[in-house]
This record gives sequence, C-alpha cells and structure tokens, in this order.
Amino acid sequence: MPSWSQMAADKKQRQIKSIPPQWLISLPPESRLDVTTYPDTCGLLTPEEIEITNTGVEDLLAGLSKGELSSLSVTTAFYKRAIVSQQLVNCLTEIYVERALARAAELDEYLKTTGKTFGPLHGLPISLKDQLCIQGLETTMGYISWIGKYADKNAVLVDILYECGAVPFVRTNVPQTLMWGETFNNIFGRTSNPYNRSLTPGGSSGGESALIALKGSPLGVGSDIGGSIRVPAAFCGLYGLRPSYGRVPYGGALNSMEGQDSILSVLGPLTSSIGGLKAFMEAVIKARPWLKDPLAVRKHWNEEEYRLGDHGHGKNLCFAIMWDDGLVTPHPPITRALEMTKVALLKAGHKAPVLPSLGGKTAYQLWQIQRHKRDLRTEYMAHWNETVSRTGTGRPVDAIICPAAPFAATPHGKHRYPNYTMVWSALDYTASTFPVTSVDISLDTKKPRNSFLGILDKEIYESYDPETFKNAPVGLQLVGRTLEEEAIIAMTEIVDAAFKG
Amino acid sequence: MPSWSQMAADKKQRQIKSIPPQWLISLPPESRLDVTTYPDTCGLLTPEEIEITNTGVEDLLAGLSKGELSSLSVTTAFYKRAIVSQQLVNCLTEIYVERALARAAELDEYLKTTGKTFGPLHGLPISLKDQLCIQGLETTMGYISWIGKYADKNAVLVDILYECGAVPFVRTNVPQTLMWGETFNNIFGRTSNPYNRSLTPGGSSGGESALIALKGSPLGVGSDIGGSIRVPAAFCGLYGLRPSYGRVPYGGALNSMEGQDSILSVLGPLTSSIGGLKAFMEAVIKARPWLKDPLAVRKHWNEEEYRLGDHGHGKNLCFAIMWDDGLVTPHPPITRALEMTKVALLKAGHKAPVLPSLGGKTAYQLWQIQRHKRDLRTEYMAHWNETVSRTGTGRPVDAIICPAAPFAATPHGKHRYPNYTMVWSALDYTASTFPVTSVDISLDTKKPRNSFLGILDKEIYESYDPETFKNAPVGLQLVGRTLEEEAIIAMTEIVDAAFKG
Repeated sequence: MPSWSQMAADKKQRQIKSIPPQWLISLPPESRLDVTTYPDTCGLLTPEEIEITNTGVEDLLAGLSKGELSSLSVTTAFYKRAIVSQQLVNCLTEIYVERALARAAELDEYLKTTGKTFGPLHGLPISLKDQLCIQGLETTMGYISWIGKYADKNAVLVDILYECGAVPFVRTNVPQTLMWGETFNNIFGRTSNPYNRSLTPGGSSGGESALIALKGSPLGVGSDIGGSIRVPAAFCGLYGLRPSYGRVPYGGALNSMEGQDSILSVLGPLTSSIGGLKAFMEAVIKARPWLKDPLAVRKHWNEEEYRLGDHGHGKNLCFAIMWDDGLVTPHPPITRALEMTKVALLKAGHKAPVLPSLGGKTAYQLWQIQRHKRDLRTEYMAHWNETVSRTGTGRPVDAIICPAAPFAATPHGKHRYPNYTMVWSALDYTASTFPVTSVDISLDTKKPRNSFLGILDKEIYESYDPETFKNAPVGLQLVGRTLEEEAIIAMTEIVDAAFKG
Repeated sequence: MPSWSQMAADKKQRQIKSIPPQWLISLPPESRLDVTTYPDTCGLLTPEEIEITNTGVEDLLAGLSKGELSSLSVTTAFYKRAIVSQQLVNCLTEIYVERALARAAELDEYLKTTGKTFGPLHGLPISLKDQLCIQGLETTMGYISWIGKYADKNAVLVDILYECGAVPFVRTNVPQTLMWGETFNNIFGRTSNPYNRSLTPGGSSGGESALIALKGSPLGVGSDIGGSIRVPAAFCGLYGLRPSYGRVPYGGALNSMEGQDSILSVLGPLTSSIGGLKAFMEAVIKARPWLKDPLAVRKHWNEEEYRLGDHGHGKNLCFAIMWDDGLVTPHPPITRALEMTKVALLKAGHKAPVLPSLGGKTAYQLWQIQRHKRDLRTEYMAHWNETVSRTGTGRPVDAIICPAAPFAATPHGKHRYPNYTMVWSALDYTASTFPVTSVDISLDTKKPRNSFLGILDKEIYESYDPETFKNAPVGLQLVGRTLEEEAIIAMTEIVDAAFKG
C-alpha cells in the first residue's frame, strides 16, 4: 500500500494532468500579491472571453436564454479563466473539461432544436465546493483516505442544478474537516486570496471565493456551518448567502460530521454579481427541493416576501447597525465599511440605529444543549421584537448590518474568532454578505488604544497593521430572521443600490 | 406536608367547586353507554343553547362576526354543555367560568363599539388540552407534584388565540406523561368515550375528543407526538390535524420531556366540523407565529396550496389506500371504513390505488438516531415519488388514506399499538383524521382467520368482537407530505364532501 504522501502526490498529479496543456500560462512572480487583473492580461483568453467572464450572472442568463451567447462559448471562457485562477491561487480540486463542455454543447443543441431553454439557469457554468458530489467524480474533501471514492450519484442540489440547465464545471478547494476559516488540505494544498496572495481567501468555501473573485466562475455553491460562505465571500469582495436550514437541499452533500444535529450546515451561493443571489435561490426553490430531499423545507418561492411585504414594501427600511459583538472590536477598515454603509443608507432614505452589542455572548454559548439554544433563540427574538419601540416605522428593525469578521482577510494561518458569523448560525438566521470597500493604507491607519474588552480583543487589535492587510476586500453581513431568504436578497439589493446611487 | 392522595383529592374538590351549582344535572345510569344525545335532552340547555352548540365552526364564526350571535351567549351555551360533558365523561381539568364569560362580554363590547371583529376567531370558545398554559391558571397535566403551579404567562399559541379574538374557556384532561393512547391520571381520573362509556376516547388529547364529541366545545387544541390528536379524533368521530413540526407554535406549552429532540410534539386542532380545521390553521398562521416563537416555521398561509396548486387544482386526485401496515391487520369496521372511502372517492371522480404496506417497519425503527431517520425519510420520499408511474395523473399519489389505528376505540386499559399514526410522525408528514362510520354489530362481524402476520396481529385479531366495540366511531387518516397543511385541509374537505355528495 502506498504511503499517504504518495497517495496525495498521485492525486495531485492526476489533477495537474486534467488541465489541457494549452491552457497553461506563464506565471507572475510569487512576490506579486494582487493578481486580480492577471486573467485579463495573461493572453490566454480572447477578447470575447474576457468580455464574457466580466459579465454578471443576470446578463449571462439573458444572453444564454436568447441564444445570443452559446453555453459552449461561455463555459469555455469560464473554464479557461478557472484554469488561470488555479495557476494563480490554487483554488480547484476536480477538473473535468470534456464532460462540462459536452454538457454545454447539449444545452446549445436543446435550445436550437426546441426553441426553449432547458431551465432558468440555462447554460450557466456553476462551480461547486468539493463536498457536492457529482456522479462518476471523486470527492475527497481533502482527505487522503477518501481518494478513489467515486460518487455513484449526484447530490440533490447538483441534480437540481442540472434540471435547471446549469453546467457544473469545476469543484473547488476546502480545508480538511471544513471547520476552519482558511483553505488548506494535504492533497491540494493551500488556496490564496487573489487580492493579496499573502492572505487567506477565507474558508471553508475558500476555493469558491478565490475562484469567483478572479471571475473564474460567475457563481458557485458553498456551505456554511458557522460562516463558511460568509467569511470567504467577505474576504474576497463577493456576495454570499447563508440560507436558513432546509431552504436549499443538503441531501447527498458530504460532510465530516454526518448525523450531528445541533450545528447545522447549509448550502448557499457565492457570486460576483448581486443578481446571482436571486437567480440561484429562485431557480433552486422553484425546482421544489422538498420533493427530492425530506429535510428541505416546503416553502415555495414567495414573490410577496421578495417585494418586502413584511417590511413596508421596502420604503423607509430601518437597519440596525451592530458595530461590535461586545468581545472583539473590529479593525479600522471594517468600522469604516460600517460607516460607509450607514451613510449610503441614510442618503437613500432609510434609517440606521445602533444595535446594542450581543452582550458578550458567544455562539459557543448559544448552541449548547437544544433546550438552552431554544431559550436563547427566544431571548433574541424578544430583543429583536422590542426594537419596534425605537424604529419609528411601526416595525421592529428590518435587518441587522454587522461585520462578517472583526478583520479583513488575514495572513495565512492567522484566521481566528468566527463569532461574528457563528452567532447567526446558532440562531438559524438568514444572512448575506455584500462587498463595501477594501483596505486602504492611508485611510485605515492603526489608532492607539489603551482599554480592551478582553485579552482576545487586545490580541486582535495588535494583529492589525494596514500594510499586512493591504488591498484586502471588506464585506459586511446583512442579517434577517429565519427563512427570510426572499426579503434578505431584496434588502441586499437595496443596500447594494444605495452604494451605487 | 399532605400526602399525595390528599393533595389530589383537594385539587379535585377545587375543580368540583368551580362548577356553578345550577349547572349540575341529574345523571343517567352508569350502565347507559351512549350518552351523545344526553346534553340535548338533559334539560339544562335552552333551545337556543341547543341550537348554538349544534352549529358548526364556520357558521358560528359567521354569526359572531355579524353580531347575530353574541360571544357571551355562545360561550355560555358551550360552557353549560362542557359542564354537562364533564359530568358524563369526566373530560375537563381547569374550569374558570367567570373569567371566560368576562372575556366574551369584552369581545361583544368591542364589536359593538368599533363595528369590527377583534380577529378572525372573534368570540369563538376554544378548549385547550391541559398542557397549554394560561396565565394565572394551574397547569398540572395530571401530575400531583405540579399542583399549585400557576402559569406566569400564556403559551405562545394561547396568546395568538387571544389576539385572534377566541375565548379559551376550559382545559381538558390528559394521561400522565402524555405518552399514552388513553386518558387517565391520578388527579382527575379517567375520561370515557361518549359513544360508549366502556371505551376510551383515546389519548393523549382524550379530554378534548370526549368534550368535542359531546359538542361541549366546537374546537379544541391538542398535541400529537405519535398520534395524540389523531387517535382521539378518530376514536370520537372528529376531524383532527397533525401539522408538521413548527407550523403551529409550541412555545410555552408544557410537556413531560422537554429538550428531547428526536421525537417532536406538535399542536393542532380537533373539531366536530370540517370547516374548523381551516378556520383554526389559517387564523393561527396569519398571526405570524414565527415572530413569537423562534421554532415556528416562517411560512405564510398559502392560498394557492389550499387551492391544490401542487395537486392539479383538486381535479382527478389520486389517493393511495394503505389497507394495513404489514404488521397488524385492522379490525372489520376499519377495513369497511376504508372500503366506504374508496367507493365515495371513485364516485366523486378521483382515483384510489393500493399502497403497498410499509413492509413491516415500525415507527420505533424509524426514529432512532438522527442519521437513520434521515435515511428512512429519504427512502419513503423515493417510494412516494415512484408512484408517479402508476397514478396516470402525471403526479405521484396526492395523499395516502389509511387507518388511524387497527381498531376503533378500545375498552379502557386495552389500548396498544400506535404504529399507524406514529409512522407519519417519524416522517413529520402532515396528517388529518376524518370520521367515516361507526361500529355496526350486524355489518362488522368477526370473520375466522387462520394465518397471522405475527403474534401481535393474532392478539389484536382476538381482541375484536362487535359487541365490545358497539357504536364506536371509526375515523381514518389522510396523510400528505411535510408542511403540506393547506393541501391536506383541502383534500380532507374533498374526502368529506365525497361522503356527503
């Protein structure tokens, strides 16, 4: 039997061989930290391919559905760019070019023959975190002992994406166990942040976030147990959504701790375009996942909730801003992003009161025994409901805006403290991330502090200096209540529009 | 400290004293088994009160909302009849006449003053199983050690019922622990079945079913962990609904095993009128229970699902009939009820294929560890979905019709074998019960059998003789998928109409 290091090396070699040799590029020096513009300039992509890969999900879907873009050309363009991304930041696991292009060609043929799209995601390439099984492909999740495990069927969500006409085209890197905010394992190695390769892209969906940040994929599926979609999305300047448990079907997706039931993992989208959140969620929910996965919630896509029927139809929204969690003060760029968001929202005619911090409660305290968790969920619900006395809208606050982490993307190996995302997981709240700014060494200077909330606050304060985090994207979270996906997508669009308006 | 028997006797005495003396009646002889007509003839109720208490929920609500009926007169009528019921079958726990009548008078005043109803259940008296706490009242659930525990707040559902304008007016008897299909405890004693007082009304919501069968309440709230709404509803000729977990808020309701999470108890309605199911569920869901109980599912009342949008809009439905569970053959009246239902449905233009039995799997096997339960839910879902090849409607079967128990109401102390209801609880399926017929000694003769599915099948076969079960109602279950309340209510109405048409 080969040694574990031989097995890992063999798998890695097979991955390298799965790359078409004509797609290998000459690499920038390792000292070049920001590689986000490299795919556009490396010479592998044609001008059309550069244009396609810089197009947002909504426009891609529009072009594909009208036949103005072929799925083959779109999939080829993103595949080439994904391979460039792989060479720059090591974000992929499974690469299966022929199969994906054959699927794309079939969809083109279908549209040509029938005059109809195959489904609402017709022809769109979608990347998948390594735990989402595809029939006939290996799923290792970075475990050497899982090498050679070929899936005998698709995960339920993969089936649905195929039904919707999507083209799952690559799988992406994860940390071993999935329980870490960075992305490294013993088979595929480490994934880096394309905005600054000395930093992590976050984790556990860090292969996704690095790939999508380089526009090597327009939209990908990650999973989130305590922040694993939101942290990488925030660290890479993307939109992400942690749906509530059961809204997106989890059946057939692998995980490291099957059967444990107190901390629930969910699947959700990461994307470079705001329209991608709705396109993905609406398509998946309209495919009636509850008929395919018994743990999926039977809740039809609710257009009235998307029109913010529970939130005054989106006029005069009231967002609570949570500046810190009472335990760890965010770094200067994060606080600046909160201020920017507040200003943009006020200017757009919305309100933004301060939300008192969480009173020093950590997520760990929240999800102990089930009984305790229910009591704390009840307590938070009461806390939220009571804000009705302070909003002036006749409603409690419509959503909470808060950091996704107290820092931007950290240097490799330095990520810690997932509380800003975990707390909402423990409450099973719907939470999105949206990009706001990036670390600016002139604006985000380190200010002296003498008092600290505790030892952790002090350590995290000390870990900051602008040069280390230079150019790292800064994203924030928008948090709604359980099963409020439609409303949170709509409010994320409103926040996003406030920045652009 | 008093002995436990003194404490129980004292509580019972306080209960007796809470009955207005003018509402005490002369009792029929204990040998009179069927007391269902006794309230109409005992002389306590006026002709108007007899008419009111024989009116269905929909008509009561219509009369109350127009001011044609006052809540005070309706509540008084049902209260008198509830007290008669108590004297006949011992179905009540907490009796609080003054408080309920004061509430009714307030609602009348509200309508008079504002010209508007207080809510969708304006003025309707509703009975509550003893676990549903009401502020200021004791909740003993039959535990002597809980005597003297006065609730400091309402259960969430009780709050919602008040908000909806209902008049919670009595609480009803339960078996100690709630985990039994009969109704007996050491404080309040045993509840009997008004159709045949030598039989049980079922349990654990047996106080409810006995009360409502005597029309001492138009609608009540029970709870169901493995059949505790459906078995008593079926045993007493009522409509009942076991919603999926989280559709009706459970917060603040007491139970014996708080914190255990693998077998989930749910609250739901029992009622003598088919319209009661929709009236209750629509009112409760439209009150947005998810804003009051963090474990309630955020799913708005979906009128399109009620119009059977997922089931061909109710035309040409296909019901699977499960004649037995593969372990215990139902008694003759149950099988006859299934045959009657099949004939009625075919006549109404629907289909009714046979559903293969559950293959000898018990609910106990289904809800072991979480992982195992999920696998079995997946297996059942696949099984259900595969029926699409045999229905001819392009859909899998729309619902399952099956026994609620292999027998009608059993003699006191003889209830056993809850598998026919428990199996759907383990799958978290929505399930209603509807009345079909009652045991007829000339039609439901005992037929000789030589072969049995097992020892239990033989024992349950031997326990049957028509005379023992004489006059017992026979109800069946209608089973849909998880969170399909709207559709199951609509299909129950269709089945009910098929009998009447």
